[in-house]
Amino acid sequence: MSTCLNIPETASLLRDADTVLILTHQFPDGDTLGSGFALCRGLLQLGKKARVACAHPIPERYRYLTEGIHNDFLEPDFICAVDIANAPLLGSLDYYADKVDLAIDHHAVYAEYARYLLRDPEASAAAVLIYQLLIEMGVTLDVPIAEAIYTGIATDTGCFRFSNTNAGAHRIAAALLELPVRYEFINYLMFDMKSRARMTLEQSALAGMLYYFGGRCAVMPITLAQITLAGADKDDLEGVAAIPRQVEGVWVGITLREQEGGCYKISMRSDERVDVAAICAGFGGGGHVRAAGCNVDGTLEQVTGILLEAIARTVPKIGDECAMAP
Amino acid sequence: MSTCLNIPETASLLRDADTVLILTHQFPDGDTLGSGFALCRGLLQLGKKARVACAHPIPERYRYLTEGIHNDFLEPDFICAVDIANAPLLGSLDYYADKVDLAIDHHAVYAEYARYLLRDPEASAAAVLIYQLLIEMGVTLDVPIAEAIYTGIATDTGCFRFSNTNAGAHRIAAALLELPVRYEFINYLMFDMKSRARMTLEQSALAGMLYYFGGRCAVMPITLAQITLAGADKDDLEGVAAIPRQVEGVWVGITLREQEGGCYKISMRSDERVDVAAICAGFGGGGHVRAAGCNVDGTLEQVTGILLEAIARTVPKIGDECAMAP
Repeated sequence: MSTCLNIPETASLLRDADTVLILTHQFPDGDTLGSGFALCRGLLQLGKKARVACAHPIPERYRYLTEGIHNDFLEPDFICAVDIANAPLLGSLDYYADKVDLAIDHHAVYAEYARYLLRDPEASAAAVLIYQLLIEMGVTLDVPIAEAIYTGIATDTGCFRFSNTNAGAHRIAAALLELPVRYEFINYLMFDMKSRARMTLEQSALAGMLYYFGGRCAVMPITLAQITLAGADKDDLEGVAAIPRQVEGVWVGITLREQEGGCYKISMRSDERVDVAAICAGFGGGGHVRAAGCNVDGTLEQVTGILLEAIARTVPKIGDECAMAP
Repeated sequence: MSTCLNIPETASLLRDADTVLILTHQFPDGDTLGSGFALCRGLLQLGKKARVACAHPIPERYRYLTEGIHNDFLEPDFICAVDIANAPLLGSLDYYADKVDLAIDHHAVYAEYARYLLRDPEASAAAVLIYQLLIEMGVTLDVPIAEAIYTGIATDTGCFRFSNTNAGAHRIAAALLELPVRYEFINYLMFDMKSRARMTLEQSALAGMLYYFGGRCAVMPITLAQITLAGADKDDLEGVAAIPRQVEGVWVGITLREQEGGCYKISMRSDERVDVAAICAGFGGGGHVRAAGCNVDGTLEQVTGILLEAIARTVPKIGDECAMAP
C-alpha cells in the first residue's frame, strides 16, 4: 500500500535524496520521457545526482530531451517512477518493482507498487505534477526543462485536443511559453512527422476503405501483406485506428488489423451516438465509450459481416434512411 | 488613415453604439466567424442589437457558432470588421468598404480602410482581441461566447501548434476551459474531420508521391483528373500542401496542383534548412521562409525537373551523400 503525498510532502522527500534513479515506462512516450528528463534536470540543478532509465532505447524523435545529459550509471539512494501506473510497465526494469520509493502518476487506475505516491488523476499528464513539484522545490525553469514538460503535456493531450485537456494544462503551457520553447518543432516531431513506410501504409489502407450504412460506418482493413509491402513496423501503425472515424458523416470508424493465424484485431472509434465499448465487450474486448477494441476470428469478409451485424443490433438507427449515398 | 485605438478606447466606442453590423471576411474561417459571433453575442448580452454578415454562406462545420442567434437584417448605426486586413477581403460586401467604423485585426500587414482600428500583430488571432475587449466591456463569458473565442484561437494557431502561438493564447484558453467548452468537438470539426472526397484525393495523391535527393525532397502531384475522380472541391484541397513535408527526413515538401491550361500551382514547405520563399521568388512567387508558392508552366515532368534544379542550386547540400536510400 502506497502512502499518498501532496506536492510539498513530495518535494521535501526529494530534497532529502542525493542520488536519484528515475524510471520511465517501457515503450516510452513523450509524457514518461518528458516527465523523467524534466525531473532529472531539476534535480541536477539542485546539485543532486540523477539519471533516467527505460526498458527500451529512447526513440530518435525524443532525443532532444536528452541534450547535454550524461546519463551514466549511478548507485541510487532514491528511486522514483514517473507516469507508471503498474509495475509490469517497467518492462525489463521490473527488478526495481519492489524498490520504488516514489511513484508520480496521473492515471485513473493505479497499482500500489511504490512506497510513496504523488498522484492526481485530474492532471492532464504526469508532466503537470512534475511542473508543480519543480516549482515547489525552487527549481528555475530553463528552456530544456520547459521543453520536457511541454512534451509531456502536448503528448498526453494530443496537443490540447483530447478530453483530458483542461485549464490547468493551458495555464502551465502559458508559463512555459514565456521561455523560447520550440513548441512548433516539438509538435512536428510528436504529431506531424510520419515515416515513409507509414505514408505508404496509409495510402494502401485508404485505398481499401469501405463504407456501410450510407456512410455512417467506415471500415479500413490492414492486412499483413500491406504491412510487409510498406515495410512498416509497430511504431508505424500507431494512431492509424483514428483514420476511418475522421471521415465526415461517420458514426463508427473501424480498423481491422490482420494478425498471424487468421484473426483480426479490431479498433473502433465513434462519435457521441455510439458506445463502441459495449459493442467490443460483446466480443470479449473493451475500452472507452468512444474508443474500444477486441479480437475476432475469421476471414476479412466474415469478420466485417459479424461486426456490421453487431453494430446494426446495438445502434438500430444507424440503418435509418441515410443522408448520403454509399 | 485609421485612428489607432487601445482596448479601453475601443470598448468605449462600442458602448456608444446601439445597432452593430459585424463584417467577416469572404471564404470565412474559424477566426473571422469565431470573432464575429463572440462579439455579436457580447453586444446582445449588453442589450444592443447586432448581427454578423459574410460574403459567403457559413460552412456547415461552423454552424454551432450560430446556435440561438437570429441573424436578421438591421439598419446599423455602427459597422465593425473582424479579422479583415484589407477591403477586398469583404468580397461581395465591399460596398461597406468605406463605411467601416472599426476594424479589429491581428495581421502583420493591414490596409487602412476603417475609421478606427484596434490591431495587435502579436495577437495569435483576432479572437484574442475580442476576448480582451469583451472582458473590458464587462461582458460575462458564457459557453457560446467562450466556444466562439476558442474556435478563433484554435483555428489560427492550428490548435496551439503554429509559430504564432504564444503564452497569451494559452492563458485565454485556460480561462475559457474553466467553462464546459466543447474543445474536443470543436477541434474534431476544425482539424480531424475530412470529407470522403478529401480522403479519396489524399489516397490517390499519396500513391503518386515521389522522393528525390535520397528522400530529402518529396513531390506530390495532384492532377485535374484526380480531383475530378475524387469529386473534390476547393475546400477539400485545403491543407493538402502540408502532406509531403510530413514525411520523416524531408527537407522540402512540394505539392504540384495542375491548373487548367497547362500550368502547375506549386506549394512548398520546408524545415529550418531551406528558404522556400527564396526558391519560389525565382519563379515570381513568394510567401514565408518555410511555406511559399508559385506558378510554373509546363508538363508535370518539365515542372518537376525545373523545381528540382532550382532546389539543387539554392540548397547545394541537399545533394550531399544521402542518409536514406531512395
